Amino acid sequence: MAKELTSRAESYAQWYNDLVLKADLAENSAVRGCMVIKPYGYAIWEKMQRVLDDMFKATGHVNAYFPLFIPKSFFSKEAAHVEGFAKECAVVTHYRLKNSPDGKGVIVDPDAKLEEEYIVRPTSETIIWNTYKNWIQSYRDLPILVNQWANVVRWEMRTRLFLRTAEFLWQEGHTAHATSEEAIKETETMLGVYAEFAEKYMAMPVVQGYKTANERFAGALETMTIEALMQDGKALQSGTSHFLGQNFAKAFDVTFTNQEGKIEYVWATSWGVSTRLMGALIMSHSDDNGLVLPPKLAPIQVVIVPIYKKMEELAQISEVVKGVSDKLKALGISVKFDDDDKRKPGWKFAEYELKGVPVRLAMGPRDLQNGTVEVARRDTLEKSVLPFDGIEQAIVQLLDDIQQNIFNKAFKYREENTTIVDNYDEFKRLLDEKGGFFLCHWDGSSETEALIKDETKATIRCIPLDAPEENGKCMVTGKPSSRRVLFARAY
Amino acid sequence: MAKELTSRAESYAQWYNDLVLKADLAENSAVRGCMVIKPYGYAIWEKMQRVLDDMFKATGHVNAYFPLFIPKSFFSKEAAHVEGFAKECAVVTHYRLKNSPDGKGVIVDPDAKLEEEYIVRPTSETIIWNTYKNWIQSYRDLPILVNQWANVVRWEMRTRLFLRTAEFLWQEGHTAHATSEEAIKETETMLGVYAEFAEKYMAMPVVQGYKTANERFAGALETMTIEALMQDGKALQSGTSHFLGQNFAKAFDVTFTNQEGKIEYVWATSWGVSTRLMGALIMSHSDDNGLVLPPKLAPIQVVIVPIYKKMEELAQISEVVKGVSDKLKALGISVKFDDDDKRKPGWKFAEYELKGVPVRLAMGPRDLQNGTVEVARRDTLEKSVLPFDGIEQAIVQLLDDIQQNIFNKAFKYREENTTIVDNYDEFKRLLDEKGGFFLCHWDGSSETEALIKDETKATIRCIPLDAPEENGKCMVTGKPSSRRVLFARAY
Repeated sequence: MAKELTSRAESYAQWYNDLVLKADLAENSAVRGCMVIKPYGYAIWEKMQRVLDDMFKATGHVNAYFPLFIPKSFFSKEAAHVEGFAKECAVVTHYRLKNSPDGKGVIVDPDAKLEEEYIVRPTSETIIWNTYKNWIQSYRDLPILVNQWANVVRWEMRTRLFLRTAEFLWQEGHTAHATSEEAIKETETMLGVYAEFAEKYMAMPVVQGYKTANERFAGALETMTIEALMQDGKALQSGTSHFLGQNFAKAFDVTFTNQEGKIEYVWATSWGVSTRLMGALIMSHSDDNGLVLPPKLAPIQVVIVPIYKKMEELAQISEVVKGVSDKLKALGISVKFDDDDKRKPGWKFAEYELKGVPVRLAMGPRDLQNGTVEVARRDTLEKSVLPFDGIEQAIVQLLDDIQQNIFNKAFKYREENTTIVDNYDEFKRLLDEKGGFFLCHWDGSSETEALIKDETKATIRCIPLDAPEENGKCMVTGKPSSRRVLFARAY
Repeated sequence: MAKELTSRAESYAQWYNDLVLKADLAENSAVRGCMVIKPYGYAIWEKMQRVLDDMFKATGHVNAYFPLFIPKSFFSKEAAHVEGFAKECAVVTHYRLKNSPDGKGVIVDPDAKLEEEYIVRPTSETIIWNTYKNWIQSYRDLPILVNQWANVVRWEMRTRLFLRTAEFLWQEGHTAHATSEEAIKETETMLGVYAEFAEKYMAMPVVQGYKTANERFAGALETMTIEALMQDGKALQSGTSHFLGQNFAKAFDVTFTNQEGKIEYVWATSWGVSTRLMGALIMSHSDDNGLVLPPKLAPIQVVIVPIYKKMEELAQISEVVKGVSDKLKALGISVKFDDDDKRKPGWKFAEYELKGVPVRLAMGPRDLQNGTVEVARRDTLEKSVLPFDGIEQAIVQLLDDIQQNIFNKAFKYREENTTIVDNYDEFKRLLDEKGGFFLCHWDGSSETEALIKDETKATIRCIPLDAPEENGKCMVTGKPSSRRVLFARAY
């Protein structure tokens, strides 16, 4: 194979990087920490966007757009937020360049210094709540259910394609409500939307839960999260939904007159997923041959490769293929017929395996005679020869099977790599030996959480929503605990 | 009417601003020159995006994403480009804030100064051609047909919502070709796509043509444009498509091995439309009652308002309306049933007129008895009473009629306001008295063009593609001219 990947066993990190580059998903750019998302990678992101956007709209949300820049002073208005967000960020200080006196290129014009610096948004709570102030007077103006698709910048020192980049693409929902109950319900609803998207579309099982106080979003009263387990035994936080209480309403003085005529502060939520999901998708299913994409998010769902020696064979195959291709397209399936004469079938097989195309059809002269076609599925790499007649229905079914199978496989992997542990030494040992998720008792204190993180690099990923009440003792301090929490090392 | 607009006769500029604000399309933000695009305005932009994106894909283009930031030195690489673009722009000089020593807020950390400043992209030719360098080796890698949906920033001093803002949203296509001919064809194809979009979807007639050398994009060999005429007699440049020759390939050293094995520089195009189209759409059709939207881009195509006194009447109306609403939705028509009990029908009528909803249905108890419904069309404000049975088909037809009618109206307006003039004094007089487009002979020199601009504020909008050869004399210098060019004052 021309584009061989490092195997996962050899180096998982290198395998990931190879795969992102060689499958043409993304690459590093000339700008520190910023990536270029290449067409094939962007096509997957577009599919994700479309599905998520439809889900947001189905739950009553609308899109809007707010400025890229945030006045520096806005960050200082919410005390916790400034600590969490305003530090490592891109700062715009000037608004003009001028020709360099030495005639070589351009320099920053010192006369064009901004009175107040602007921050390139790392997240938009502050600029949005400053705007909502003018949108909200009465309970009749509530709720506001707005989402924004945007780019954001956080000056990360160590970056990895999709997983952690200085600039990334995301959506950020920002909602305003009349009551605490309604805002909490919204926080939960959107976490549910994320979980449904992860499981039904990305075929990636997730644990839903609450973050501990240490791990909360800067300015939130509660942060809910979906956590997925990658094939190297590390957790990846894949989406978060925050109940912000009245913190931003107080910081930006956003009040409303309630039904009884009293003035109250507005209740807020925010929630987001980003291009980081691309990393999660890649790492959840792919193998040493390349990407494995769930059919529901694959830009090309079916590729058809003709096997021929003479051009008249290609012509015959093309004619037959056109019929099935049209039928598949009519069923909403994206099909590519690769009749590029410059590449051999073997090269094409490897290429589409690398790119994770779920189903590959190969048709040669003998198939034409026999009325058959070779069908290969990417997830299991199994091949079978099927009658060409009625192949459309077989493919529809196969795409469903693949979607379900890769979810099942990821689910089984997670089940096998979720360990219940009661002893801290065993926890440390298994963390190194096996990795994965650990369900353990914890005394609820930030000190214990910090100690565990310090000693093991494992963090509490969440307090799972579905964790049953169970009396136990903290594995470190022996203090009482009423439910197990989810530990893992994480991306 | 609660939200009265300034009339166009009184002040066209004030009417426009009132309309953008009162129809909830956009508003100014706390950041100088940057707007907030509100949900209703953004919904129109999303419709535009979807149609354009489908058209780009149908012509073989794919989307990708490149960094927001551009290293300062990149701009200096293409001499004309730096003159045109690198001056008024947002400059990122630092990457960190820190707590202020006085304990109040945050300040820029002087230790976190970038070695080389970054410019927030005003357009992406430089960063993209720096990337293409690595994507292109052989003629087999060509063409590259990539589009990007993105935000860009140009530090405009005088801004107007949608028409001219510091940050705006746009798409920018950047293509790479093996031959000059192919790149020129691409430039023309994409101008054609823009013209088709403007006329078929925005219902806005446009003149297609070439910009003069003075008005070309910085770094282009040719700039093609679509120009539309607004209701105040001013032109609005609505989209441009540039043939960049080999300028950017040379600046960034992007070469390829051609079929004969020789190394050549790559040929380039770029093309873009932006949220400025929102301004064009608003100004093309709207009236003193508010927005007039073409059905193909209206977020709500049909609104249904119940007229009732008792709640049981509303219940009866709702039941009947649900049937027709479902049928319309099944036909792909977006319908809103406004049964909000807090607002009177008269208020709703005015509100949906303001928001440009193409068709309004009103149904009261008498309609229920008679099996009728009142149908009002936004473009002509005409009302008629139609049988309720089979109303769906009547509405489908009506939406088509409205789409065609507002195009015809705009086309007629443009015809009536396009004047053929041969005398410079008459040109100056009519420019003040009547405005609009002027077809005049011009000697082809930049000096004459500059003189006319200086004396009249009119510019050559384009050399129209469909201008017939016609021998004439320049209206200013009397020198020979072989075709008329299009003059106007412009936004």
